[in-house]
Amino acid sequence: MLLEQITKPEDLKKFTTQELEQLAAEIRSFLIEKLSETGGHLAPNLGVVELTVVLHYLYNSPQDKFVFDVGHQSYVHKMLTGRMDKFDTLRKYKGLCGFVKRSESEHDVWEAGHSSTSLSAAMGMALARDLKGETNKVVAIIGDGALTGGMALEALNHIGHEKRNMVVVLNDNEMSIAPNVGAIHNYLGKMRSAKNYQKVKDEVHQLLSKIPAIGGKITKTAEWLKDSLKYMVVSGVLFEELGLTYLGPVDGHDIGKLMEAFQQADKVGGPVLVHVLSTKGKGYAPAESDSHKWHGITPYKIESGQVLKAVGPPMYTEVFGNALIELAEQDERIVAVTPAMPGGSGIIKFGERFPGRMFDVGIAEQHAATLCAALAVEGLKPVFAVYSTFLQRAYDQVVHDICRQNLNVVFAIDRAGFVGPDGETHHGVFDVPFLRHIPNIVIMMPKDENEMRDMMKTALAYNDGPIAVRYPRVTGRGVALNPEMQTIPIGSWEELQSGESAAIVTLGPMIEVAEEAAALLKREGLSVRLVNARFIKPLDEEMLMRLASENGRILVLEEGAVSGGLGSAVLEFYAERGVQDVQVKCIGIPDRFIEHGSIQEQRAETGLTSEAVASEIMRMLPRPRKSASGSRL
Amino acid sequence: MLLEQITKPEDLKKFTTQELEQLAAEIRSFLIEKLSETGGHLAPNLGVVELTVVLHYLYNSPQDKFVFDVGHQSYVHKMLTGRMDKFDTLRKYKGLCGFVKRSESEHDVWEAGHSSTSLSAAMGMALARDLKGETNKVVAIIGDGALTGGMALEALNHIGHEKRNMVVVLNDNEMSIAPNVGAIHNYLGKMRSAKNYQKVKDEVHQLLSKIPAIGGKITKTAEWLKDSLKYMVVSGVLFEELGLTYLGPVDGHDIGKLMEAFQQADKVGGPVLVHVLSTKGKGYAPAESDSHKWHGITPYKIESGQVLKAVGPPMYTEVFGNALIELAEQDERIVAVTPAMPGGSGIIKFGERFPGRMFDVGIAEQHAATLCAALAVEGLKPVFAVYSTFLQRAYDQVVHDICRQNLNVVFAIDRAGFVGPDGETHHGVFDVPFLRHIPNIVIMMPKDENEMRDMMKTALAYNDGPIAVRYPRVTGRGVALNPEMQTIPIGSWEELQSGESAAIVTLGPMIEVAEEAAALLKREGLSVRLVNARFIKPLDEEMLMRLASENGRILVLEEGAVSGGLGSAVLEFYAERGVQDVQVKCIGIPDRFIEHGSIQEQRAETGLTSEAVASEIMRMLPRPRKSASGSRL
Repeated sequence: MLLEQITKPEDLKKFTTQELEQLAAEIRSFLIEKLSETGGHLAPNLGVVELTVVLHYLYNSPQDKFVFDVGHQSYVHKMLTGRMDKFDTLRKYKGLCGFVKRSESEHDVWEAGHSSTSLSAAMGMALARDLKGETNKVVAIIGDGALTGGMALEALNHIGHEKRNMVVVLNDNEMSIAPNVGAIHNYLGKMRSAKNYQKVKDEVHQLLSKIPAIGGKITKTAEWLKDSLKYMVVSGVLFEELGLTYLGPVDGHDIGKLMEAFQQADKVGGPVLVHVLSTKGKGYAPAESDSHKWHGITPYKIESGQVLKAVGPPMYTEVFGNALIELAEQDERIVAVTPAMPGGSGIIKFGERFPGRMFDVGIAEQHAATLCAALAVEGLKPVFAVYSTFLQRAYDQVVHDICRQNLNVVFAIDRAGFVGPDGETHHGVFDVPFLRHIPNIVIMMPKDENEMRDMMKTALAYNDGPIAVRYPRVTGRGVALNPEMQTIPIGSWEELQSGESAAIVTLGPMIEVAEEAAALLKREGLSVRLVNARFIKPLDEEMLMRLASENGRILVLEEGAVSGGLGSAVLEFYAERGVQDVQVKCIGIPDRFIEHGSIQEQRAETGLTSEAVASEIMRMLPRPRKSASGSRL
Repeated sequence: MLLEQITKPEDLKKFTTQELEQLAAEIRSFLIEKLSETGGHLAPNLGVVELTVVLHYLYNSPQDKFVFDVGHQSYVHKMLTGRMDKFDTLRKYKGLCGFVKRSESEHDVWEAGHSSTSLSAAMGMALARDLKGETNKVVAIIGDGALTGGMALEALNHIGHEKRNMVVVLNDNEMSIAPNVGAIHNYLGKMRSAKNYQKVKDEVHQLLSKIPAIGGKITKTAEWLKDSLKYMVVSGVLFEELGLTYLGPVDGHDIGKLMEAFQQADKVGGPVLVHVLSTKGKGYAPAESDSHKWHGITPYKIESGQVLKAVGPPMYTEVFGNALIELAEQDERIVAVTPAMPGGSGIIKFGERFPGRMFDVGIAEQHAATLCAALAVEGLKPVFAVYSTFLQRAYDQVVHDICRQNLNVVFAIDRAGFVGPDGETHHGVFDVPFLRHIPNIVIMMPKDENEMRDMMKTALAYNDGPIAVRYPRVTGRGVALNPEMQTIPIGSWEELQSGESAAIVTLGPMIEVAEEAAALLKREGLSVRLVNARFIKPLDEEMLMRLASENGRILVLEEGAVSGGLGSAVLEFYAERGVQDVQVKCIGIPDRFIEHGSIQEQRAETGLTSEAVASEIMRMLPRPRKSASGSRL
């Protein structure tokens, strides 16, 4: 095994091309085996094996900087930089991160998780290098999907202007997570299909030589024409026009060709884009044949490619998608918009059922949000299906285009709360604080599948402005579905359980935690009132006044940043009303970023457990009760 | 006067080209005269007179939709759609809005204020039209500066993919507010400089005819070559590659040529980009010669072009810019980044003093933020100079790239609080709520010029992560500047005035309002404690505990959204500490968007006045005191 000889990138440099090819094969086997146990981003990493090997062979990390866009394709990089032995802990609590992580290794120089940041990062590193008078190389590795993100294009505009030395690897696998869409994708497609590239080039040169040399005034034009032609046949004119040198396309699984391309890139100087064609899932048949499914995968059987899935109630994502179809059958104004996540966000079936009414705009959250605004201006009912964490990208558009114009846009905010193994870059823990202060918006969260469906109906029946349904990355509670969806009065909370000692105001999956806490407290002889705060905005003011007078002690429990969250809204309400005799305690995610692990582990780390909630209630009570012994609190 | 005959767009249609030219001249005179009294966006509007006239002549608004990017260039549109008589109230309280405003006219179909949204909006309107089976035209008018905003590029990617009928007018004046930068700008420059465009085209056709017709296998290449050449000489290849038809460039001040271009655009079908070359400030010599200064202007003398400016203390912007230069003289790691606002954000002199250390990245807030992150990774001290309202565009990058990686980026957040005549799209009233919940960030606001300077020193001396200084769009308080800047202990508040009845916790320009309120209350025999909450995060916890025990009644006053603001942070703190015996009242901007007017009018509308604050304190006191008569409270 050559792989066993690698503990650092320098160990690669002694290998021949043939040995590097063997190494690539060994890396593939390693990944296919390890990920069958842990799950992870298999297909993207199988696609960059040769690319990563060549980069580490030619460059000198960490002096030379590799900036991986998103970072889910950094597994091979991790293997080559001394972390092979940690793959059993991949994406597990306190284990190896599924993305680039600066605290893991000096070779990890830039962290991401969200798409399209690598070009800005590489540009900053190139500027800093030049200011410091250093000479290291900077290499950004970005996929064709990520390239359509607005900030990548902003960066390209700056890169082409500054002309600093840097290499942009365009890893073109015709996919982001879903198959790519958009004009840039189509453009790359044209280049990919230019198979007889070298032949055409030769023929053009032949033709050029036949243009007669004419003296006088026409000479200049003839010269210009020759230049233009050379330019055209070099392809990549879009990038060349933006000031980058374009090299490629090059086969991303051919180590020799990759070597050549990067050696040439180094000679050119200035910003160079190397267009690498790769196959997602390369070398593992199931992943190659359905790289969408195998983008990020749970554990699987290697031989059959059978994915091991827990059986149980449907995910909220699925409940949402089905409800949307039902509602859209009855209202043709309903359309759906997704930024490159038709599968993940549960609207792929909607798109199949209503092909003209689903718009996948690519990785482009800003555009997606404002597109929804315009669709609403024209009387349609757009549903923006997006993950909480990615909606962060469209904060300004939500404020400025949707809420300020008070338009009937429905936000379907998936992955609200902890997300588990994707960790700190993917949690949906800020959407309440970043949406709550925006005028005109209504924000809801369901307690179960039926409420999820009812909220979709409520949202699409609402005609007074923007309205959001946020839901977690977990399964529903397994309730039987009501045949008919009902609308819910805006701003109405729901009492789930009566009680005197204190009230717990909570929502979504935290309701289950609160129920358990109430059960624990019951054993201590305490009865706790439980309220489903299904509207985060507007609050149920009447209910809040009742809780203040009838319970006096209120614990607000939420799986989101405690700063600026629902608890904060409750505090603001009582302060505004001048309600003095109420004790409010807010439990939510503390003011720090929470790393990867299981959702249960993340909740345990942050005190979002029934035991912690019950203890907190006990502390709120005037006479601390202690059972003689064995209290679980 | 032809202008007097125009009350609606149809009135234009009877005019000859010559008459339209006369009308354009009359419009210019009108704008130059009216804006000399009110101020406003003079130069951008003088640049689009002919363009707007031609659009309204050829299309039928409001069935056909005009989507103005930003909307500050909609004055001519407003004149032609029945609002000429309202120009005396331009940008004034309850007067004509300086941007497109849907409530003003059915011809205003899309509102903006922030840049680069028009292409997404137009795309949405085109999709909606097609879904509804309608046939109206959709025309987006976007400047070359706005085109570099990431979301415009995201939209272009979608537009080129969808191929719907729509017209994109690229109004190319080589400026955003500052002169443009970036590769796209350079690219447009090449097209602009192709002056002998038609001549070159003819010559190329002549040359093409000389390429020998060769049979057999080479024919295909020859054909391809001819196609490519045609393609090249048509220019605009960048847009053509993205799937738009490119027409132009066309002289934006030649009514006949503009007519031709748009008539041609209508025939083409699919998305068409019409590249219009215009001169900002056209027809008014002072504005033509310095269109940067005349982009948005205060009242001026028409003959001399002399701008009428109030004399007084320096704006915070200027204090910031000077402090930054002083600090950068001593620390060469300090660099500044601006998204197309070197002038507005006060770093233009920094750029002149340290040319290699100022990066204007174009209208690209997302890229700017992440660029800063990368500069910080490499050990530099980036200062991101940005308006509060535009920082909204980079929310995700602040969370994900800067704060999550806990990097030493300094935010210089200008225009925090109300901004006056630019109104609801430009207020800096959300930055506290959208930043406060992000882990790792420190947020400050100065009370005067010296504290502004001290905060810059503090920020640049701080090495534990991101730190922000936010400051308002007003002058300082006119204090004498201390020769040396001092660092301020992180999280320390300052008692400005002692008092027993209650405490006012406030910051920035609201300190003056609080001082006046305290003076009013003094007349009523009440002494109020005044605290400068110069750190919004972290809070001064010791001071808060003291205020709770010593005053018990606390009014938090801020010029920002009350929801999620500083007051909310104070409430959270007391709740977390379980402090019961404290009454907190939060005064800030209520949960709605506040329109244009003067800052004083905006404060009066939202209760941010000394009288309102004093009344509120009175209401908080146990025994409502009333003076016998004549109380101003």
